[in-house]
Amino acid sequence: MEILGGPLFAVAGAGESHGPGITTITFGCPSGIRIERDQIQHFLNRRRPGSNKHGTPRNEADQVVLTSGVFDDQNHDAMLAGPAFSIGGGAEIATYKSGFATGEPIAAFVGSASSKSGHYQQFAGPQGEVRPGHTDLVKHHQSKGFVDYRGGGRSSYRSAISDVVGGSIARAFLAEAFGTRFLSNIVQVGSLKSKRHLADVFDSQDSSATDVDDLEASLAASEIYTIDPEFADAAAKLIIETRKGGDSLGGIVEVIAVNVPPLVGAPLYNSLKLRLMGSLGGLHAARAVEVGSGNDVVTRLGSENNDSIRGDGYKSNHHGGMLGGITTGRPLVARVAFKPTSTITTAQKSVRKDLSEIDYQLDKGRHDPCVAIRAGVALESRMAIELANAVLQHQSGRVHADDFKLFE
Amino acid sequence: MEILGGPLFAVAGAGESHGPGITTITFGCPSGIRIERDQIQHFLNRRRPGSNKHGTPRNEADQVVLTSGVFDDQNHDAMLAGPAFSIGGGAEIATYKSGFATGEPIAAFVGSASSKSGHYQQFAGPQGEVRPGHTDLVKHHQSKGFVDYRGGGRSSYRSAISDVVGGSIARAFLAEAFGTRFLSNIVQVGSLKSKRHLADVFDSQDSSATDVDDLEASLAASEIYTIDPEFADAAAKLIIETRKGGDSLGGIVEVIAVNVPPLVGAPLYNSLKLRLMGSLGGLHAARAVEVGSGNDVVTRLGSENNDSIRGDGYKSNHHGGMLGGITTGRPLVARVAFKPTSTITTAQKSVRKDLSEIDYQLDKGRHDPCVAIRAGVALESRMAIELANAVLQHQSGRVHADDFKLFE
Amino acid sequence: MEILGGPLFAVAGAGESHGPGITTITFGCPSGIRIERDQIQHFLNRRRPGSNKHGTPRNEADQVVLTSGVFDDQNHDAMLAGPAFSIGGGAEIATYKSGFATGEPIAAFVGSASSKSGHYQQFAGPQGEVRPGHTDLVKHHQSKGFVDYRGGGRSSYRSAISDVVGGSIARAFLAEAFGTRFLSNIVQVGSLKSKRHLADVFDSQDSSATDVDDLEASLAASEIYTIDPEFADAAAKLIIETRKGGDSLGGIVEVIAVNVPPLVGAPLYNSLKLRLMGSLGGLHAARAVEVGSGNDVVTRLGSENNDSIRGDGYKSNHHGGMLGGITTGRPLVARVAFKPTSTITTAQKSVRKDLSEIDYQLDKGRHDPCVAIRAGVALESRMAIELANAVLQHQSGRVHADDFKLFE
Amino acid sequence: MEILGGPLFAVAGAGESHGPGITTITFGCPSGIRIERDQIQHFLNRRRPGSNKHGTPRNEADQVVLTSGVFDDQNHDAMLAGPAFSIGGGAEIATYKSGFATGEPIAAFVGSASSKSGHYQQFAGPQGEVRPGHTDLVKHHQSKGFVDYRGGGRSSYRSAISDVVGGSIARAFLAEAFGTRFLSNIVQVGSLKSKRHLADVFDSQDSSATDVDDLEASLAASEIYTIDPEFADAAAKLIIETRKGGDSLGGIVEVIAVNVPPLVGAPLYNSLKLRLMGSLGGLHAARAVEVGSGNDVVTRLGSENNDSIRGDGYKSNHHGGMLGGITTGRPLVARVAFKPTSTITTAQKSVRKDLSEIDYQLDKGRHDPCVAIRAGVALESRMAIELANAVLQHQSGRVHADDFKLFE
Repeated sequence: MEILGGPLFAVAGAGESHGPGITTITFGCPSGIRIERDQIQHFLNRRRPGSNKHGTPRNEADQVVLTSGVFDDQNHDAMLAGPAFSIGGGAEIATYKSGFATGEPIAAFVGSASSKSGHYQQFAGPQGEVRPGHTDLVKHHQSKGFVDYRGGGRSSYRSAISDVVGGSIARAFLAEAFGTRFLSNIVQVGSLKSKRHLADVFDSQDSSATDVDDLEASLAASEIYTIDPEFADAAAKLIIETRKGGDSLGGIVEVIAVNVPPLVGAPLYNSLKLRLMGSLGGLHAARAVEVGSGNDVVTRLGSENNDSIRGDGYKSNHHGGMLGGITTGRPLVARVAFKPTSTITTAQKSVRKDLSEIDYQLDKGRHDPCVAIRAGVALESRMAIELANAVLQHQSGRVHADDFKLFE
Repeated sequence: MEILGGPLFAVAGAGESHGPGITTITFGCPSGIRIERDQIQHFLNRRRPGSNKHGTPRNEADQVVLTSGVFDDQNHDAMLAGPAFSIGGGAEIATYKSGFATGEPIAAFVGSASSKSGHYQQFAGPQGEVRPGHTDLVKHHQSKGFVDYRGGGRSSYRSAISDVVGGSIARAFLAEAFGTRFLSNIVQVGSLKSKRHLADVFDSQDSSATDVDDLEASLAASEIYTIDPEFADAAAKLIIETRKGGDSLGGIVEVIAVNVPPLVGAPLYNSLKLRLMGSLGGLHAARAVEVGSGNDVVTRLGSENNDSIRGDGYKSNHHGGMLGGITTGRPLVARVAFKPTSTITTAQKSVRKDLSEIDYQLDKGRHDPCVAIRAGVALESRMAIELANAVLQHQSGRVHADDFKLFE
Repeated sequence: MEILGGPLFAVAGAGESHGPGITTITFGCPSGIRIERDQIQHFLNRRRPGSNKHGTPRNEADQVVLTSGVFDDQNHDAMLAGPAFSIGGGAEIATYKSGFATGEPIAAFVGSASSKSGHYQQFAGPQGEVRPGHTDLVKHHQSKGFVDYRGGGRSSYRSAISDVVGGSIARAFLAEAFGTRFLSNIVQVGSLKSKRHLADVFDSQDSSATDVDDLEASLAASEIYTIDPEFADAAAKLIIETRKGGDSLGGIVEVIAVNVPPLVGAPLYNSLKLRLMGSLGGLHAARAVEVGSGNDVVTRLGSENNDSIRGDGYKSNHHGGMLGGITTGRPLVARVAFKPTSTITTAQKSVRKDLSEIDYQLDKGRHDPCVAIRAGVALESRMAIELANAVLQHQSGRVHADDFKLFE
Repeated sequence: MEILGGPLFAVAGAGESHGPGITTITFGCPSGIRIERDQIQHFLNRRRPGSNKHGTPRNEADQVVLTSGVFDDQNHDAMLAGPAFSIGGGAEIATYKSGFATGEPIAAFVGSASSKSGHYQQFAGPQGEVRPGHTDLVKHHQSKGFVDYRGGGRSSYRSAISDVVGGSIARAFLAEAFGTRFLSNIVQVGSLKSKRHLADVFDSQDSSATDVDDLEASLAASEIYTIDPEFADAAAKLIIETRKGGDSLGGIVEVIAVNVPPLVGAPLYNSLKLRLMGSLGGLHAARAVEVGSGNDVVTRLGSENNDSIRGDGYKSNHHGGMLGGITTGRPLVARVAFKPTSTITTAQKSVRKDLSEIDYQLDKGRHDPCVAIRAGVALESRMAIELANAVLQHQSGRVHADDFKLFE
């Protein structure tokens, strides 16, 4: 089963890059949480190609429709004000614009505006060419040749729409319950490094909601999604040059959660650390993941790395908000390293799917020169999904008889 | 997570009775299985209200669209000939009419033609009336009042659309791999009992595909879905009379699989018997489930109940196709008893959701007088889903090095 | 994975009839619940062969040792007063006698006193004989011949030790949180039927703890585990006669929970009804399972079957404590039908594992003439496990910020 | 549920540092795989404290007993030659020394030789002191004070015994099916770096079994578990000095699998990459995990990082054996960074569990100055468990009718 998170808060996804659309079912949102379609759309817009100047030129509308799991008994009209759709020329069907989670599965659909299969003839059939660095070859043979290879099919980054939809719902829940907020920050592009990390911004204390709003506004206005303006400008230039040269760049993205509820996460095999490492490091093109101080801890002594504790909390956050895989209340901090985009226009040694050798040259198609640029919102989403699941799991062990009352 | 079957072949569902539609994601169909939208539609039509003379008068189109997980490299045009849809006045998006499973999640959507919330004012808010026999009261309090109560919301039998979609895909897989077929047969309505059981038809031997086709044709032509024409006529009359009297009827449905692969199902906690008992007995309004000879075994001696074994197979099928929860190759046989429809027009003692007492009388609305009538296709679907999952699980333990080859 | 219940409260089992012992890991018991080894042993004693006059003559000690997941900071000595054990002649290791659940997995082990493999030569190897009604044939071929066939191996009823261990822990949790109690009652043996059902005893109201204690005492004192003394005597006689005749009997066991927390259980695919139907109906030799009025509902009209509701509760319990798979607070009621024991001394037609035909005659070995006799405690256990899991799942959706506090 | 891997190949663990012992149940080993207790013991010995000169001085026997899931019909005596045990002074019970997996759960138990609770008075109760860098504080409050704090309780590295037991069984399966082998190699201790990486050794080609045997012998003979002798000596000295100084060191361990079956791993949410990142990065004290070239990819151009493909395979392994989370047949390569051991004898600022502030100073107790030293075998185990699960999952989608035959 393709499920992100779970078993309590969980996201199921389906859909290929050039198919009719991406379907998402989100399980486990507690009843009564306010869900706004526009809020989900806001985060989807951040994922969308073309959402910044340095992503792929593909122009996708990515309009989400919500089709289940929310309700608003007081305001049916506003509830049903989402984009209407029709199937096979049938009557128009209204979708949900806003409502309260009912506690039942929330389904969402994002249609694909354009699916020009023609672009992908180069990759069709047993004679289809294999793009180095991509899943083309393994998926062709894994599926016995039945894979949808158009635009990478299901393995396309377009599948991350489900991450973002589910993540948006997790965020709504966690914001309402604890004021938790999620942010990301590009900290490296190729060899260029940012001088400002969110971990430092939030080092001494958790931020008020206002601070986070300011940071978000600043991130949205930046040339690339980072809080260091000089780095943003330099990285943007490097990306443009590299794209012109037919090549691509790697990058590192920091992701953080603030106002995190403490005591969350089981130890060991089901720990929040294990889950975050997997969920964040499992994203497309990710090659490394760190939590807290990450690799930096290796050259520290224990006396330097242990965070002091006082009566009002941990005095530093080398531990990245988790000890033993359990939250301490300090911000969750992680960084994910992405490889340079595999799709480049430079010629490469490759094979056809039947393993005959070729000099591979991309015919046409679009691509991000640096996948790290758009990855932040997916990382925030995955962190939110795993945290939401861990919160529900912790609550499950604190049984209150008052929550089990009917006739009394 | 609302998942039917699994962890290998699994079906996730979402959607409420009067919401925009029912979303289904089916996981685990092996790549290369031929999937036809029309075949799924065929089974959905059997579930649809109005699909027989004695179901609810609600007229639903229930047109399914497939939006992921299938592909046909040789025939893109036929593949994309499913009903087109558009969202928010956008461009038309083609959906899949036929293709081969890619091995990735298959998403389907069935829109709701008409969602007249007006019918359900009687049930809105804390003053909303509680229908005896329904989930109204427990779901209102379980959800802290946020439940979508329109037409039963998610608890409506309309949610079984996901069972049928997933079941259709499981059937396609099992038919292709083993020739497995699934049939159901109404065997009791109120006190009226059928004289013909499928278990007897298939007692001495598995059927050829042709026999099953004949049976299916005969079932489709019958007044109600049963292989006993006299019983069909009598039951139909009884249903009409009971409906006129403002009341409802219980019933029993037999469900069977033939050409079942042997050796399938883990023992004990994950046995196919456990899974089928749960999946079949868990269907809406089901109150009892039996496998094989079921309750009849109680009054037998062991020497009467044990099935003799000869070199070519088990000589009888008291065991209903499973021993120790593992398939023997004999037909899977189960029977499910359904309560009389809870929705009736007769007055009843009830409460409002705030627990104030009322004399309850249904204002308006539609209902099946006997839910057993339409339950067969859902039972077949659930049996297929569980069997498909068990087949994949059995195969997982038989590792063939040849299935793991790339460069050799 | 062989897991009973879950994903929150779950029981993993391992171990074969004639192997060294049965291992059980119970997950999800909330921290702080008092766990007493003697209480677990009490329920294990009810499962043990020889625990009543009409079970198998096999004499098993079935002493349980607890090796993890409990702690008692105030009383280390009492905590460590369980049976000590030693491995390979090493030092004695103390095990837990009592403590509080820590919230981490609770491991238990029940060693096998005697494992005389010699009894089972008749069944060894490809020439091994197949006992009709047993799993011998399918498990031999499913496992490619590697199955442990001694005494039925893992498929033996001895595996139900794990059900009982996990169930005992679930009971401790539910009793402490809600006063929930579980009872069973044999209601039919062969054609003999009891006149007293627990469902009737608890029809008008839930019982106080005292009443349940009295019932338990009466059940423990009875010739067989039933609340109808006349039926007990008649059934006991029938069992003795049938055993003498080399044959076996079926039976029906009622299982019930009182003081059940309402609002528990997800609807549809994860409903408590689905889970109970599977878990109870999945037990060894079970062939049918009913909840509430079960098969009786079929011949009722809706107006007869719907339970009236007043301000203080449901006025009857045809629904068996669940509507839409969610608890109403009324007792959970189920009945499970068991086939006559497959092992009999009467000659039968069978095959060897290589499918050559034989006239099968049991050489030696022990068996219960009526498996229903000892099944009650396993059914109670499974009901407790599923209810505990559903309780945790319900609580997970009711998030209290106060349960997530550390430095404030 | 505390489950590592799964849903097909999965390991459940239970047990605390100073409790009676560690229980492990391993699910999903295909029937017929040869299991040797001594082989499991061999890997456990590598995990054991005192297994090398630079680990903790605690001397644990860690003798494993196998109590279910294996069988050897031809050789009962050899099968039952494992260490015998007795419970409560009862008869001796033999355990398994060797046999073939039956396909059913394999239970193992490792008793604790010495459990001197007296060492841990410093940490008992609400006045108990909190060790910086440990889980003491969060687990105390998470468990409402019921945690077993002795030696870190369940969060102790002793819980990794279950990883190693399950991993040993996964290794037996993968070695038999594909010749797959797992190795680890310490590559950094504090600031000292090794000059030899296994990824380089296996860069040009997979190794024959002989080469791996040689490497294993060389690793076992080394001062610390690394293939660079000079680095080994320098690191050993540094560890001794640091321990004397009352402090601790971080480290990095490389882990690799060779002779890996290709085509294994689902894409996206269930990909082998996601699973490995989580499983490896989730180990105690791990703070970062990389696959393939890891963080190094960030500063490469796409044209440098993409691995060329020829008819006989990938020409380099920057991708670490996985593309899109699916195996390519090249070695799986990962590196995990560990923080310096939290337990040090240097004084630190801390609190009691009731949050009153203290100057914390360890009274007594033992610890590894560098946890990375013993981590390799746990990492190998986790990689083996995840790969075994992914292999079974891949096989489940390749259905062979011949594997489903009984009477033909």
